[in-house]
Amino acid sequence: MRTLFTAEMSELADDLIAMGRHVETAINRANEALLTANVELAQSVIADDARLDDIEETVDERCVLLIAQQQPVGLDLRTIISALRISAALERMGDLAQHIAEAARRAYPDSAIPESHHAIFEGLAAAAAETATAVVGLLETRDLNAAAAIVSDDDKLDDLHSQAYQSLLDPAFNGTTQETLDIALMARFYERIGDHAVGISRRIVYLVTGDHKGDRARI
Amino acid sequence: MRTLFTAEMSELADDLIAMGRHVETAINRANEALLTANVELAQSVIADDARLDDIEETVDERCVLLIAQQQPVGLDLRTIISALRISAALERMGDLAQHIAEAARRAYPDSAIPESHHAIFEGLAAAAAETATAVVGLLETRDLNAAAAIVSDDDKLDDLHSQAYQSLLDPAFNGTTQETLDIALMARFYERIGDHAVGISRRIVYLVTGDHKGDRARI
Repeated sequence: MRTLFTAEMSELADDLIAMGRHVETAINRANEALLTANVELAQSVIADDARLDDIEETVDERCVLLIAQQQPVGLDLRTIISALRISAALERMGDLAQHIAEAARRAYPDSAIPESHHAIFEGLAAAAAETATAVVGLLETRDLNAAAAIVSDDDKLDDLHSQAYQSLLDPAFNGTTQETLDIALMARFYERIGDHAVGISRRIVYLVTGDHKGDRARI
Repeated sequence: MRTLFTAEMSELADDLIAMGRHVETAINRANEALLTANVELAQSVIADDARLDDIEETVDERCVLLIAQQQPVGLDLRTIISALRISAALERMGDLAQHIAEAARRAYPDSAIPESHHAIFEGLAAAAAETATAVVGLLETRDLNAAAAIVSDDDKLDDLHSQAYQSLLDPAFNGTTQETLDIALMARFYERIGDHAVGISRRIVYLVTGDHKGDRARI
């Protein structure tokens, strides 16, 4: 019974890693679709999102069955409850990558991002890619250095989001309304990706260390 | 033991109702703050959001303890797992009301919404208020008519969000960039409030009827 439980907990962890890798791919592809106006990549992110939704459903069902059949307590129970939250956050990160890909697809053959904002979005894309890689690393190894990287990437994403937003209000900016909306919304999508990554990271840090550090795992 | 469990399940339900009422108040106040440029109301929404976060934490902790101590199965277990999802969705609805209040506060003494868009935002505010009331009703009574109202309000919110967005791209619109950004982001916040309400509604419909209707409870 115990061995079965251990195997099932391990499968649950593997499902989350699979979701994390899927999100990492989606973010990398959405980034490139956006920065290079690549409509095929944009399309692949949009088409593949359903797969992420399927894994999330599997994770949810596995969590309910694990609790019902094994009646875990203590850290095992908290790990399972955290898995529910983490899968929801990963699914949402995938949605945000999808929204970015949709904007890239809509603008095609043009870029959704005017030249003036290319550098900011390269920064957003790089930080989001980094955070996705760090989330996968954290899920795989529980190495807390990855948690620190996630917080640092989130700071970068917040700063760049704020820069992007402020740049639109600068009288020197003379983009179209569509460009204004794309920049504002996509910068926000990147910023939200960072928030979800931080939420996942806090959950895992809590499981590993028992330390809430005064903040709730807000995911 | 069973009586204690029943009492604890009832307290869990009460916590969710309390969260729902809190969200309803936050949405109503954010609406009025936005539509009438009332900075005191905006301030109260922002200040009160921490209370919602506290109740969410209580709900989460209660769910973990209920599972650990009572080892529920079947519908009881699914009800508790759903409570975790519902509390997260309610907390997020509160955040969105807070974001709307923040925009109202920032624009004060002006209105964040230009006269040209007042009617659309009256519609968004009314649909969001309705959906919050329906969510409370659904949590209190499990009356499935409330679920139908939530879906109908979500359709209204989606339509009005889309109208607001399209109106910004109309060459006839000559608002400032700040107005453009406020309209786009706030219409999106209202639209997201509707999405979270639908997610809550699907969870409860599933608990009451066992019917997934082919869609996942995506919250």
